[in-house]
Amino acid sequence: MAFKTLSAKSAVALDKELMSTGAFSIDQLMELAGLSVSQAVYRLHPPSKGKNVLIACGPGNNGGDGLVAARHLWHYNYRPTVYYPKQSKNELYQRLATQLNNLGVPFTEDFEGALKDTNHVVDAIFGTSTQPMFKFRDFANRFTGFSFSGEVREPFPAAIKALKETTVPVTSVDAPSSWDIENGPPSEGPGKGFYPTALVSLTAPKPLAKFFHGRHFLGGRFVSPEIAQKYDLELPEYDGIDQIVELDPKTGQKLKL
Amino acid sequence: MAFKTLSAKSAVALDKELMSTGAFSIDQLMELAGLSVSQAVYRLHPPSKGKNVLIACGPGNNGGDGLVAARHLWHYNYRPTVYYPKQSKNELYQRLATQLNNLGVPFTEDFEGALKDTNHVVDAIFGTSTQPMFKFRDFANRFTGFSFSGEVREPFPAAIKALKETTVPVTSVDAPSSWDIENGPPSEGPGKGFYPTALVSLTAPKPLAKFFHGRHFLGGRFVSPEIAQKYDLELPEYDGIDQIVELDPKTGQKLKL
Repeated sequence: MAFKTLSAKSAVALDKELMSTGAFSIDQLMELAGLSVSQAVYRLHPPSKGKNVLIACGPGNNGGDGLVAARHLWHYNYRPTVYYPKQSKNELYQRLATQLNNLGVPFTEDFEGALKDTNHVVDAIFGTSTQPMFKFRDFANRFTGFSFSGEVREPFPAAIKALKETTVPVTSVDAPSSWDIENGPPSEGPGKGFYPTALVSLTAPKPLAKFFHGRHFLGGRFVSPEIAQKYDLELPEYDGIDQIVELDPKTGQKLKL
Repeated sequence: MAFKTLSAKSAVALDKELMSTGAFSIDQLMELAGLSVSQAVYRLHPPSKGKNVLIACGPGNNGGDGLVAARHLWHYNYRPTVYYPKQSKNELYQRLATQLNNLGVPFTEDFEGALKDTNHVVDAIFGTSTQPMFKFRDFANRFTGFSFSGEVREPFPAAIKALKETTVPVTSVDAPSSWDIENGPPSEGPGKGFYPTALVSLTAPKPLAKFFHGRHFLGGRFVSPEIAQKYDLELPEYDGIDQIVELDPKTGQKLKL
């Protein structure tokens, strides 16, 4: 079977549709997305194997998913640390950060230092569909050929380089940060050669997933059959009450165990 | 150990605090509350034992939790039917109802007819802390001695009577509808003698839980240690990624299996 994916353009349209005809609020969607990510981390790396998790959050929606995941991980008895150097002024993100402050979750500015002391990393720096910076990059890539490294400001290139070089397992949210939605791993810049351990695709895998060969989960158990049909998605069946389902990295179909 | 509970007054204050200093939005809290309820239903009655679930929703927050639970139950492969005779004009509840419409979940006005055709019922008619009608009732109870049945309009008294008389298992959300937060089962009115099969207390058990002897779950895995301390809660440890924990109905402590 073909590896079905959602194009960059369709991913943006689907996200908009979830919040218009779908009637979801961004609070709801982000809560469920972050919950999915936390369940994938638990599956990959239960707290019995080491409780320290470093969550790297970018300034957009991908970072918001990371903030939600960090909260759930705290409740699962992990010891999360959050790297969130460019904190959004957006009211929702501010609230998500306050929720972590209320749990005593530490925020660090020293990503490389924190990496040395962690058992697992969540890469929620850049995602796909709703990440404004990414959309601009995608636009720029297609129309001007600008490279990734030329547009993303520090400290993110340094963080992506550190993610590439670390031996700690990395789970990327929706996309390995710096990867192109359509074309996958970049051929230049700090993300060249960055292959995370695991990927949690949200709503549906994007074309970049075809270039990814690690463990692949799908999250976002909220898509209606009508939307799935409209966007020509073949969503796998989730089991029980799981908010994630593991996919075969080769085919994008549900992994047969 | 004493069965620790959260008084009616404290429950209202705690809910307010979650949304002020706690920085949660009602969307987030309701999503997590409804998710807890859906997980309790799955634990009590997995879809392999019968997929038809009837969710009875009142006009307030308790009903909103029920609408969220219905959506998750649909995604778990149940066939939910929703009884929601007094639909709130509140934007959030309207969106939650639209989310169910988008999944093709049927809404019925015939509660007693729907009861004949279901395997499990969720009672999300009246809750405790954030239910305006309930708060009024609580106020009225304490200051005027008005009875429950005198204040709640049809069709809810008839629905509560049907819940009392049905042989189908009933899971109540936060409170068995018509029970007094402090004093438990009413001594008159349609709810007299209504004992549901299971109760999902949200955030913390209320005093009414001491009068309840069925299976008892706690949901709402989002309370910070600071808030727990302020309200003198002894919250049990949740397991793994569970959004619910089963309590011993006699002691309110985590059930030892």
